[in-house]
Amino acid sequence: MENHTPPDRALMKDLTIENITDNVCIINSNCDNVRLKFLLDRLVNYLHDFARETRLSITEWEAAIGFLVQVGKISTDVRHEFVLLSDVLGLSLLVDAIDHPKHPGATEGTVLGPFHTADAHVVGAGHQISHDPNGEPLLAVCSIRDTAGRPLGGVSVDVWETDSKGFYDVQYADRVEPDGRAIVESDADGVIFFKAIVPVPYPIPHDGPVGKLLMKLKRHPYRPSHMHFMFKKPGYDRLITALYLRGDPYESSDAVFGVKESLVVDLYKVGDHEGYAEKYGVPPETKLLTYDFVLLTNEEALKVRDAEAWKEAKRQGGLKVVDGLLVPEDASETSTTKTATD
Amino acid sequence: MENHTPPDRALMKDLTIENITDNVCIINSNCDNVRLKFLLDRLVNYLHDFARETRLSITEWEAAIGFLVQVGKISTDVRHEFVLLSDVLGLSLLVDAIDHPKHPGATEGTVLGPFHTADAHVVGAGHQISHDPNGEPLLAVCSIRDTAGRPLGGVSVDVWETDSKGFYDVQYADRVEPDGRAIVESDADGVIFFKAIVPVPYPIPHDGPVGKLLMKLKRHPYRPSHMHFMFKKPGYDRLITALYLRGDPYESSDAVFGVKESLVVDLYKVGDHEGYAEKYGVPPETKLLTYDFVLLTNEEALKVRDAEAWKEAKRQGGLKVVDGLLVPEDASETSTTKTATD
Repeated sequence: MENHTPPDRALMKDLTIENITDNVCIINSNCDNVRLKFLLDRLVNYLHDFARETRLSITEWEAAIGFLVQVGKISTDVRHEFVLLSDVLGLSLLVDAIDHPKHPGATEGTVLGPFHTADAHVVGAGHQISHDPNGEPLLAVCSIRDTAGRPLGGVSVDVWETDSKGFYDVQYADRVEPDGRAIVESDADGVIFFKAIVPVPYPIPHDGPVGKLLMKLKRHPYRPSHMHFMFKKPGYDRLITALYLRGDPYESSDAVFGVKESLVVDLYKVGDHEGYAEKYGVPPETKLLTYDFVLLTNEEALKVRDAEAWKEAKRQGGLKVVDGLLVPEDASETSTTKTATD
Repeated sequence: MENHTPPDRALMKDLTIENITDNVCIINSNCDNVRLKFLLDRLVNYLHDFARETRLSITEWEAAIGFLVQVGKISTDVRHEFVLLSDVLGLSLLVDAIDHPKHPGATEGTVLGPFHTADAHVVGAGHQISHDPNGEPLLAVCSIRDTAGRPLGGVSVDVWETDSKGFYDVQYADRVEPDGRAIVESDADGVIFFKAIVPVPYPIPHDGPVGKLLMKLKRHPYRPSHMHFMFKKPGYDRLITALYLRGDPYESSDAVFGVKESLVVDLYKVGDHEGYAEKYGVPPETKLLTYDFVLLTNEEALKVRDAEAWKEAKRQGGLKVVDGLLVPEDASETSTTKTATD
């Protein structure tokens, strides 16, 4: 990565299987964003290695291009087929694991999935977030704390789940309002509680190009029963996670690799907890979901992320860490890395 | 879809940065198409290595997903933005070089580019394929032979070029008919001739996501003046190539890396060739483009492709070549490789 050759030294004619990769990287190296330059350099190298080592045929390349176009075409604000593709290839889980390295005291993250939307309503404590009359009633009572065990109030918590048939609201063509999703805020005791329905297993959308790919790979499209959560609070690391129901038939074969043992929960009954039925105004036989979430501060998250990044930098050699991101050791300190994703 | 059981060996829970790649590959290994399985295995490995070694952040992943959606969204039957993306990353040229290994006696291939369409009209010899009154008139007279020097009649030749402003017909929103493109057929002497205009340099479409990427990379979007050709004849290897005008300002900085010295030509005048003005019915000062194309038979192409594939199989080890394609050595002989791109 120490190549300082100016781009005007790039060969741009008579390029071959052997020399094209270096020359594409040289011509890209004019970029003054060191992180973007680094990402492009690695991307071009891996993309070319993939084509070279598989000897990708033009017919296969055409099929891949056609596939990607279809994935883009079917994507909308509420159908995220590229996220789904990333999910079934294990990339989403991997990126989450990289960006949210395990911290012994904090809740593990998992895949966002393709069904998060930006239009959920902010609702008050105790709200019923699902309006499916066929769903099995569920009360969720969860706490949110920092790693020192202090309750965190004012956390914005995005929650989303399917209806009793296993469909998210956005999978209905006649959707007018968000349903099965809401944004709740933790109170001063760091508690959120809301009414919902017991999650059910469901297939990820498999009527599109990603579903066809799964079929060719003889993979089933099912996800085990779960409820999604996204936690946001200024000063704290955004946590995207989910809770999975123990004993689900797909607990050990999730199509998108999201299940973690620490996120698998048993459901109880509200009546099992003294005073809960009265306090939350639900019948004692109502199913109860509880969990104690622990968020990292930005500093704690950056510290563990930085430590992991430096470990990787040392493993590879020739790299350093700036703003938590890997860049070549010789990259100018003044170069902006923050705009890599602008 | 008849197999809902994951391969026994796959871990599908508590996946980490270290173990997810192997487990995604194991779950994909149920696929009975050995070539597709091989491609997916390498793809997942490289995709994950890329994310792991750059420690791709979630923000960057989101930006990449958003970028790919935009590339898909802007794509149409006449705007091939994913092809363009492949072009500017050097992938298209690489895949062409792999699929059409150099043969000392045959014309070199180059990138297809994003402007080929399937709707060009078949026209008779001598037809004017460009109706731009501002273009500088050009007569093209080319021969097509096999490697033994025998003229090849009945070759279907797709030709396409920009107008005098550097735009292909498909870049005009009000396009109703193909223009600047046609399909001509070689006569019994292996000759094609048609009227066109002198090609001009032009920028690839840079008003979309790929153009924005080029801008971030501080790369110009220009291609040197050229005319595209695609040759098809049953029994012969499809040849996609282009002829480039010598001395073009972008001859050595083509945005899509397509220029090859063997495809760079000088333009002459019709009057330079005794009898051409009368024979083809054009003024002697008309510019003249000539080239002698040489096509490979399918057998010749397969032979050289196979030889290169076996070379790569031996270099990597553990691979063999079936139907010209690399697959793992232990892949069942009865597995179908032909459907990898169905």
